[in-house]
Amino acid sequence: MITLAVDCMGGDHGPSVTLPACRQFLDTHPDAAVLLVGLPDRLASFAHPRARVVPATEVVGMDDTIEVALRKKKDSSMRVAIQQVKDGAAQAALSAGNTGALMAIARYLLKTPDGIDRPAIATQIPNARGGATTVLDLGANVDCSAEHLLQFAVLGSALVSVLAGNESPSVGLLNIGEEAIKGSEVIKQAGELLRRAASEGDLNFHGNVEGNDIFKGSTDIVVCDGFVGNVALKATEGVATMIGGFMREEFSRNLLTRLLALAASPVLKAFKRRMDHRRYNGAALLGLRGLVFKSHGSADAFAFGCALGRAYDAASHNLLDRVQARIAHAAPLLAHAEPGSQAPAPTPNPR
Amino acid sequence: MITLAVDCMGGDHGPSVTLPACRQFLDTHPDAAVLLVGLPDRLASFAHPRARVVPATEVVGMDDTIEVALRKKKDSSMRVAIQQVKDGAAQAALSAGNTGALMAIARYLLKTPDGIDRPAIATQIPNARGGATTVLDLGANVDCSAEHLLQFAVLGSALVSVLAGNESPSVGLLNIGEEAIKGSEVIKQAGELLRRAASEGDLNFHGNVEGNDIFKGSTDIVVCDGFVGNVALKATEGVATMIGGFMREEFSRNLLTRLLALAASPVLKAFKRRMDHRRYNGAALLGLRGLVFKSHGSADAFAFGCALGRAYDAASHNLLDRVQARIAHAAPLLAHAEPGSQAPAPTPNPR
Repeated sequence: MITLAVDCMGGDHGPSVTLPACRQFLDTHPDAAVLLVGLPDRLASFAHPRARVVPATEVVGMDDTIEVALRKKKDSSMRVAIQQVKDGAAQAALSAGNTGALMAIARYLLKTPDGIDRPAIATQIPNARGGATTVLDLGANVDCSAEHLLQFAVLGSALVSVLAGNESPSVGLLNIGEEAIKGSEVIKQAGELLRRAASEGDLNFHGNVEGNDIFKGSTDIVVCDGFVGNVALKATEGVATMIGGFMREEFSRNLLTRLLALAASPVLKAFKRRMDHRRYNGAALLGLRGLVFKSHGSADAFAFGCALGRAYDAASHNLLDRVQARIAHAAPLLAHAEPGSQAPAPTPNPR
Repeated sequence: MITLAVDCMGGDHGPSVTLPACRQFLDTHPDAAVLLVGLPDRLASFAHPRARVVPATEVVGMDDTIEVALRKKKDSSMRVAIQQVKDGAAQAALSAGNTGALMAIARYLLKTPDGIDRPAIATQIPNARGGATTVLDLGANVDCSAEHLLQFAVLGSALVSVLAGNESPSVGLLNIGEEAIKGSEVIKQAGELLRRAASEGDLNFHGNVEGNDIFKGSTDIVVCDGFVGNVALKATEGVATMIGGFMREEFSRNLLTRLLALAASPVLKAFKRRMDHRRYNGAALLGLRGLVFKSHGSADAFAFGCALGRAYDAASHNLLDRVQARIAHAAPLLAHAEPGSQAPAPTPNPR
């Protein structure tokens, strides 16, 4: 029985999205149970043999600072959900709420394993090869050092080796050119560390990749600073939205184009399905002593359900133990990197 | 008469692209002249009353280091083209070659005006409002300081006010959230500088914007570090290419879908036209004492021609003098920023 602790109050829609998603999830996963965390009166209507309400009296708002989330709202649904994982009552937690708060609370309660300074947000991004590229960090950390990028590479490799059954996934270092001489100082140093790790056989380091390689699927994993990753992700979401808008505008220009849209609708539907990023909802907070997943704040019930499925898959594949084992195995190469970081204290930022 | 100095040898295709583009350009711009810079035997076949060959004996390769480009190949077509601008024989130069080399040579020969430390690469990116967002820096500079970002804002404002007749274009600071407390240390400081400039009436600073705002067209201008800008640009090119691929795959799945594609072809053509980024080819190297433009290395003749058009427009609108005037006008606010930069020596990187 896999139990997920779900922050039902988080995100733009709260229970109106999370509850239907949980019901659908329970129907399709007969060996799963759900802890519905949130304001009891908002959740009381939900009755299911494999669901139990865990009360929380506060909710972290989208605009709340990390200070408020961590030190003031100690009974928030987000925190209580993560506490379930800490206490062992659930194998994974999921929230659609304020990313910065989620990361801060998760770090505070769950801590990181030895060898990892900073957890990272990792997600699967669809690529042109029909698969997905795992990219991290997508916004938990800004001002990353070269050592942090190495840690992200180790974490990402662990995640992909577990979920895709790929023992030696390829890692690309996001840069602005393929040659090793390019990039910022941190990137150049990170390249050094990654090459050294590869030569010691602990990492399958492909080399530098550029922004478009994420979508080409040139490597299984792409590592980057959280600032760069977040901007790139948001930019690609922006252009995809714009392109979708162009399509709709062109097909609705006049009666003729609308008829053509109708005729072409099977194809357009298939195309929309491929473009549907809701299926990829559910980013993992990697590098914690517990499984925590983040849904887009704007997710609808379908998307939130996909995130539940991701959390379930990770828990049922025993992702945590296997990631910890990979980290432990990589400990020598993580130790080779400068112990401790010169970078300023991490400041996670909401998506 | 506007004269453009064209590096005919640069880019993936060299004269096979640049020469047809120049011919088309000359046909459509009766008051323009072109200096065809490059290996004479490759250009000898081109005869036109308003075109003249300026010989160069070397070509900067796509893989050449800046060292080689600047110190070894002193008679490269790229350098000779820029020299024409320096000597006043041309009002603007255009090259499709190695971006890092182009920037290095341009800085060396043309220098920057007072108040500007680093030139930036600026380009127009189409947005959902039917216009274009000017984004800089797109790869000339990594490890930018807050002061550099302020300079980019001044440069970008000057460019847009000249080309779009918009006296007070809005500037957004690329960040990973809208709130001022977010982002890296440099971004937070840059936000301070930009807010101060706005309060002094010298800048129309909108505030932080996220990656998707570029495509929403939330502001006229978006400023960012060259590393982030380049990654975001490449990532969006990657996703647009992938989406285009999805479309083609779905429409070519079988005979029926192909027939539907045929039926829908007017709409699909209109859609492709809107997606066509070749029209936006031609990035400006802003912040030099001379106009230099950069074409994509992979540009075809049509795209290279669009870049020629951009360079022509800038020259005929007297962009340089007007940018210099805006910079001079903004000198007090640039001086308020810390004189000199703590950032390491700029390392331009090829796109």
